[in-house]
Amino acid sequence: MPRNLRLILEYDGTHFHGWQVQPELDTIQGRLTSVSSEVTQEPIHVHGSGRTDAGTHALAQVCNFLTESKIPVENLKKAMNSLLPPSIRINAVDEVPLSFHARRDSVFKHYRYRILLSKSCSPFQYAYVHHCPYKLDLQKMSEAGERILGVHDFSAFCDSDSEVESKVRHLLSSSFLFDSPRNLIEYNVCANGFLHHMVRNLVGTFLEIGKGRIASEEITNILESKDRSRAGRTAPAKGLFLVKVGY
Amino acid sequence: MPRNLRLILEYDGTHFHGWQVQPELDTIQGRLTSVSSEVTQEPIHVHGSGRTDAGTHALAQVCNFLTESKIPVENLKKAMNSLLPPSIRINAVDEVPLSFHARRDSVFKHYRYRILLSKSCSPFQYAYVHHCPYKLDLQKMSEAGERILGVHDFSAFCDSDSEVESKVRHLLSSSFLFDSPRNLIEYNVCANGFLHHMVRNLVGTFLEIGKGRIASEEITNILESKDRSRAGRTAPAKGLFLVKVGY
Repeated sequence: MPRNLRLILEYDGTHFHGWQVQPELDTIQGRLTSVSSEVTQEPIHVHGSGRTDAGTHALAQVCNFLTESKIPVENLKKAMNSLLPPSIRINAVDEVPLSFHARRDSVFKHYRYRILLSKSCSPFQYAYVHHCPYKLDLQKMSEAGERILGVHDFSAFCDSDSEVESKVRHLLSSSFLFDSPRNLIEYNVCANGFLHHMVRNLVGTFLEIGKGRIASEEITNILESKDRSRAGRTAPAKGLFLVKVGY
Repeated sequence: MPRNLRLILEYDGTHFHGWQVQPELDTIQGRLTSVSSEVTQEPIHVHGSGRTDAGTHALAQVCNFLTESKIPVENLKKAMNSLLPPSIRINAVDEVPLSFHARRDSVFKHYRYRILLSKSCSPFQYAYVHHCPYKLDLQKMSEAGERILGVHDFSAFCDSDSEVESKVRHLLSSSFLFDSPRNLIEYNVCANGFLHHMVRNLVGTFLEIGKGRIASEEITNILESKDRSRAGRTAPAKGLFLVKVGY
C-alpha cells in the first residue's frame, strides 16, 4: 500500500515561473517533483491545491503525493528541505488518508494582496508589494470589496481559462486593512475557489475605484456583465500571497 | 565650478558582487557609476563611504560625486532611480561643499548583524539573516561585546588588507539585542571605522562564545594577541547591514 503525504509549503515566488511544471523552466512544482523523486527514489507526481502565478508567493501552499517509501515524515521533510533552494521551505509533512487530494478536497482558500502607498519603495519590499505611490480612496475600495461578497459568476474577473466548467464562486470574506505606520494596504479574500487571475483582476478593479475612475457601486454592474473588458487590469503578481488552504 | 552631490542609498546586496566596481561583475558602485554618467552625460567617479561585501545590505550607505551638470537634485534622484534596479534606491540627494568626501569625512559607521535562532528559516528571511538554529548563550555574547569597547588594535579580527596603515579603531558601541517574538538576535556596533571583514569576524567569534567553545573573557586575549587565527570564522555576509554613516 502506498502512503499519501501532505506537505505545507512556504515560498518566495520571485525567481520561479509559477507553480506548474513547465519544460525547461524553474517552477515550484518542478522543484518539488524532482526533490521528492530523489528522496524517495521513485517517480513522484505532486498535486498542488492550485497554481500560483510567476512572482506570486505562498505562506502555506498545500500539496500531496503518493509514495511507496517508508521514510518517516520528519526525515522526509529534512531531506527535501536540504535539497530544495532556500526560497522554498516545507514547514510540515503529514501522512493523510489515501483519498486526500490537495486540490479536490480544498474547501476554501485565503489570498492576501499587498499594496504599498509610500512615495518610495524599499529594495527589501519591492518583490512583495505592488507599489502605488498615489492617493487611493480606501473607503470606496472597502465598499466595493463588500459588494462582491457571496455567490456570483466571476467571469468578469477571469482570464481565459477554458478548462473551468463553472465560473460561479462563493466569496466568504473580502476586506481591506490599512497598516498606517507602514503605509500598506492589505486586501484579504477568502473563497471556496478562485478563477485564473481572479484576485489580481479584482485588485486591478479596486485600484481603479480607489483612484476614482470607477464608482464603487459600479463593481456590481461589472460583476453582472460577466464582461472581462469592463473590469480593471490584472494587478502585478508580486503583491499576491496564498495565505492558507482550508480542508 | 562643479557641484558636489551626496547620495544616501539603500540596497539589497543579495544579487550584487559587493560595493566596489569590478570588471564584468554587477556591483553597486558599478551601477551608480553608469547610471550617474548616463543622467549627467559626463564620466562620473562615485566615492563610497566604504566597501560592502557581496551579499551585504545597506539601509543608508553614503556616496558622493562631482558633476558639472546643473540638473536639480530632486530630478537627478528621480532620473537615477528610474534607471537603477529596484534593489538599489537613492533615498536622498543633497548638494554639499566641494571639500566633502564620503569616505574621508565619515566619523562613525553603524553596522547591524542579524542572527535567526528559530528552527527553520522562512524563504522571506533567508537572504537577510544568518540562520543559527541552535542554543546560544546571549548573556556570554553580550559580555564579550562589551569587552571590546574602546580603542584597540583589531588585527585579530581583520582579514588581509595591506592598504590599511593602522588597525587601531575606536568602538563606540557594541551590544546585543534579542527580539524574542521573532527569535532574532541583533548585534549593533558603531566605530570610527572598520577593517576588512571586521564585523563578520567579530560575529563569528561571538558565535563561538555563544556556543560555549570560547569563554567570553577570552575575547580580550584574542584582541591582544593580534592573531587572526585565534578569532572565529567570518560570519556570512547576508546577515550584515550598513545602518548609518555619521559625518
